[in-house]
Amino acid sequence: MTVTKTPEAQAWERSLSPPERCTAVKRISLFEESDFKDKGPSRWLVHDSPYFKVINFNFKAGQELPIHSHDIEGQVSITVLDGKGEFLGDKGATLPANPGDILISEIAEPHGLRATTDMRVLVTIAPPI
Amino acid sequence: MTVTKTPEAQAWERSLSPPERCTAVKRISLFEESDFKDKGPSRWLVHDSPYFKVINFNFKAGQELPIHSHDIEGQVSITVLDGKGEFLGDKGATLPANPGDILISEIAEPHGLRATTDMRVLVTIAPPI
Repeated sequence: MTVTKTPEAQAWERSLSPPERCTAVKRISLFEESDFKDKGPSRWLVHDSPYFKVINFNFKAGQELPIHSHDIEGQVSITVLDGKGEFLGDKGATLPANPGDILISEIAEPHGLRATTDMRVLVTIAPPI
Repeated sequence: MTVTKTPEAQAWERSLSPPERCTAVKRISLFEESDFKDKGPSRWLVHDSPYFKVINFNFKAGQELPIHSHDIEGQVSITVLDGKGEFLGDKGATLPANPGDILISEIAEPHGLRATTDMRVLVTIAPPI
């Protein structure tokens, strides 16, 4: 598809790269901009504001975000973007974590994640902690 | 991988299905549970709480969420889970919207989305409106 863009539109798009330049709107391309680490999950703070915090975790197969909880108010969503693994819950419970799966949890509830293949995950925390 | 689960863990997992039964933790499998519509984008309110609202939109190729804005405080994230399209911005601007791409915007800034293939998207709004 070919799209003809006005100079104004082109200027708007330039203003979005890199994301830090523009506070009103930004675009992040996780599959291009984020990587994996051998020593443990890669963690990238994609966005932090008074409203929510957005973090991208990339796991190599076998890496995990150990089960944990924070004794504070708020909720977290964990969305699988790519790859497969398991959500970790209390008392050794696990749930499948496949692309398009979301776990939504009170931050005070134990939660975690283990990757069985290389895996990309997006975590949103509100309010930001 | 074979995982042996305790009865407690099994009970915990049963408590999570359907999501509505459990308020502390829930798992949603968008690729299995949500569908497309011929007449326009399919919209599913996945989660609503005092902290954030999570909505799944599925677009068939050619469908769109027209550019719009709300004159209120807060931010929105739009994450592409599957398929391709374009984020829509002010003055006819467009940005590629591919899997793993995220647009984060003030709710008061014009934003929208157009699908060029069938497309699954997750929208998070904080605070919920």
